[in-house]
Amino acid sequence: MKRIDLNCDLGESFGAWRMGEDSALLALVSSANIACGFHAGDPTIMQRTVAEATARGVAIGAHVSLPDLQGFGRREMAVSPAEVHAMTLYQLGALHGFARAAGAAVAHVKPHGALYNMAARDRALADAIADAVRAFDPSLRLFGLADSALLDAGRAAGLAVVSEAFADRRYRADGSLQPRREPDAVITDDAEATAQTLRMAVDGEVVAVDGSTVRLEADTLCLHGDGAHAVAFARSLRAALEQAGLRIVAPGVA
Amino acid sequence: MKRIDLNCDLGESFGAWRMGEDSALLALVSSANIACGFHAGDPTIMQRTVAEATARGVAIGAHVSLPDLQGFGRREMAVSPAEVHAMTLYQLGALHGFARAAGAAVAHVKPHGALYNMAARDRALADAIADAVRAFDPSLRLFGLADSALLDAGRAAGLAVVSEAFADRRYRADGSLQPRREPDAVITDDAEATAQTLRMAVDGEVVAVDGSTVRLEADTLCLHGDGAHAVAFARSLRAALEQAGLRIVAPGVA
Amino acid sequence: MKRIDLNCDLGESFGAWRMGEDSALLALVSSANIACGFHAGDPTIMQRTVAEATARGVAIGAHVSLPDLQGFGRREMAVSPAEVHAMTLYQLGALHGFARAAGAAVAHVKPHGALYNMAARDRALADAIADAVRAFDPSLRLFGLADSALLDAGRAAGLAVVSEAFADRRYRADGSLQPRREPDAVITDDAEATAQTLRMAVDGEVVAVDGSTVRLEADTLCLHGDGAHAVAFARSLRAALEQAGLRIVAPGVA
Amino acid sequence: MKRIDLNCDLGESFGAWRMGEDSALLALVSSANIACGFHAGDPTIMQRTVAEATARGVAIGAHVSLPDLQGFGRREMAVSPAEVHAMTLYQLGALHGFARAAGAAVAHVKPHGALYNMAARDRALADAIADAVRAFDPSLRLFGLADSALLDAGRAAGLAVVSEAFADRRYRADGSLQPRREPDAVITDDAEATAQTLRMAVDGEVVAVDGSTVRLEADTLCLHGDGAHAVAFARSLRAALEQAGLRIVAPGVA
Repeated sequence: MKRIDLNCDLGESFGAWRMGEDSALLALVSSANIACGFHAGDPTIMQRTVAEATARGVAIGAHVSLPDLQGFGRREMAVSPAEVHAMTLYQLGALHGFARAAGAAVAHVKPHGALYNMAARDRALADAIADAVRAFDPSLRLFGLADSALLDAGRAAGLAVVSEAFADRRYRADGSLQPRREPDAVITDDAEATAQTLRMAVDGEVVAVDGSTVRLEADTLCLHGDGAHAVAFARSLRAALEQAGLRIVAPGVA
Repeated sequence: MKRIDLNCDLGESFGAWRMGEDSALLALVSSANIACGFHAGDPTIMQRTVAEATARGVAIGAHVSLPDLQGFGRREMAVSPAEVHAMTLYQLGALHGFARAAGAAVAHVKPHGALYNMAARDRALADAIADAVRAFDPSLRLFGLADSALLDAGRAAGLAVVSEAFADRRYRADGSLQPRREPDAVITDDAEATAQTLRMAVDGEVVAVDGSTVRLEADTLCLHGDGAHAVAFARSLRAALEQAGLRIVAPGVA
Repeated sequence: MKRIDLNCDLGESFGAWRMGEDSALLALVSSANIACGFHAGDPTIMQRTVAEATARGVAIGAHVSLPDLQGFGRREMAVSPAEVHAMTLYQLGALHGFARAAGAAVAHVKPHGALYNMAARDRALADAIADAVRAFDPSLRLFGLADSALLDAGRAAGLAVVSEAFADRRYRADGSLQPRREPDAVITDDAEATAQTLRMAVDGEVVAVDGSTVRLEADTLCLHGDGAHAVAFARSLRAALEQAGLRIVAPGVA
Repeated sequence: MKRIDLNCDLGESFGAWRMGEDSALLALVSSANIACGFHAGDPTIMQRTVAEATARGVAIGAHVSLPDLQGFGRREMAVSPAEVHAMTLYQLGALHGFARAAGAAVAHVKPHGALYNMAARDRALADAIADAVRAFDPSLRLFGLADSALLDAGRAAGLAVVSEAFADRRYRADGSLQPRREPDAVITDDAEATAQTLRMAVDGEVVAVDGSTVRLEADTLCLHGDGAHAVAFARSLRAALEQAGLRIVAPGVA
């Protein structure tokens, strides 16, 4: 039986501010990328999110980020590989603190926002992340954009890598994402997004914006966690995947 | 052979700012309390400090603090036990991240500054810290002020506690520290500080400000890390302790 | 014609996080207390809030706070009067920057959250705030709890003070607020809150929790800005006040 | 009599951390660029630095920066012009708060670190800064790298601009600075740095790394504030400039 992981960014509240439909989404996804305090999340929220994810049997991942709370980790910063290595260990360790105290374990690491994009194209930064993850625990999985420098770095470090695809983003002929500045970057029609997702999940291919068909490894699908529509789309997408005979399960889970 | 631990607060630089004579002090102490980013320290500095301490065979501890970088963790804040529990796990986990990646291990936890004082007298906050430490790793040691609520909480949680005394502070008849607002709170004469320390370390007693003799458990002695004089005093104190037949060694080390 | 001010805390979003029904409330209040980046608000949000308030003819105030973003400025901190003096000038100046650039002017200062409560009872902190406001601009008004140390400090500093009352809080016989830990601290019935408000606004008195009638100067009424119910209650309260013949207008406006 | 300004970055301490020889340098410079809390400085330090500069008759400037305390504002960030506009107003206003309370006035604005470099080459960011300065007070001066986009933006906004040169940096034939990654970027010999400075200040030209002579407008010279050597070099450079008949004075001072 073919399997696929559904992941979502969670624990993105901070202090008095709420964000995301965490409880509803934890019922639908198999992996949770939990903010570690650099772009969102605080110790109290991290602890609660780890507890909720564990109770739902959802795999826990460290959603490591640049130190930019005000910009939600979405603004690229000129950080060095050494800085990225250290900030990855810090955030991964912090999340591990809550997981271990809850009798759970961190299963994966996924860079967030600007760091995700930077690590997708900059091999030195990608190596810094992969090396930090391996040094902490070589059995952790590394999530990254399909065909990215991050996955290359993860493989070179001997980590199990998990190739991520996006249900509602359009792709270019080289397998990269159509940039958000382009008008057709995002698929707004649910049926179209579902159809693209099924083809990626079942056949491992996607139709690019130029009409060509591209091979794309999709081990995990990223769902968005905010917006009124997020939960409804996640629910219908999950149903479509299950109907197509796919098992929704975190990587490495038997 | 009687033994005693010498501990010092280290890794208190932040970003471009330097603080403390870390390298010199690491040659003199047996335990390092490493700042975890809340009152001082950043990921890069934590990583470096863990590496240096490990290379010198100095035991590593998480110096957990209130989230107050500007106030260096010295301003008391009205935090709840639940908040303290979560912030302890976060900081302890973060430090563990660097230790584990370096092939080392965290040996103890010591609250810093205002949190140290709050946990010395407020049992609910003390329990929050002790419970977090035990939940993370029950083999960790908890450092706290001699005869404090923190040590009581640590014992109740089943942790090994380490009773801390101060070389250069004066004590009251009830075993508490003479508050800093009092003119005689600090011992400025090195010979007097050394004599007091030897009596605490060898005989387990101290002469209080009212002239009475007080029993005081001194498993570890806190040395200050900043000021031009810090290193010289640490060196002479260590020599005096060794000359008195004491072995300088971290708690639990064979 | 009797007059009263309606004030509300606004601009409490931060980065990617939204809070409060600012646009709706700006149509109903006469004074806006704008967060200045210490407990909420960031430069972009402050600039937008100043622009919106100015466009609606709502008076602008600096909602100065303790530096505690994670705790939303609600956790008391052991800050010195000198620190409070400096943080008041910093935040007041920052808000003035946006006001001046927009061709507007700051009209008042109101401490937020824990600082509000601390300044209500601690005269040294109250003096620090009042002195900072006067040093910056002696024509600014100082908002504070009725009968508080803050209003005393403001008067002593030669400032025009604005006595604040709460529509939905119960009072004690000495004119202080029933603490939130008491079960009857908050009035949850809208009709009762409206009746209390009218009596405060028109007659300058309130019935305390022990049944006694207390004199209470109510120059401005504080409306809460969050919660689905906030806008509806603000609208109905404003209508009730106008029906009772009161003019809703910021202090000092002709 | 020819005149020139000497400026230095000051107020770069933060909380418990000290940086720079502020008192000694305030006796030698005519303009102080004061950190505004984003890369360094806190309210208490800003207030003290404004007081000291004012007492010494040194002109006060807002040293506005990216929000990156850990990176000391030296890491470029992908901020939008709108964000830069708002953060400039925030920091400028905050410094103005202290100046106004002290009976002084802000005289200039100079971007710091990464923002300085970004604004030197990116006209949209430069316009955002210049527009913020003009909106706040069109009589303020804007400091920027000679021949930079920032000075162009300042002129376009109708501001008086002040062209900055560096005593100890080498220049390229196009008037730009030799990048720091090049081995000869910094002049380490004091005599050579002094000679270059005199030629820039007196003749308005500099010898580039390729041996060509380049025209360079030097209205103000930037002195570094940290390092044991900083004060000694500042003192000798000031003496050399005075001996060459130059008057050391802030721009706009009669």
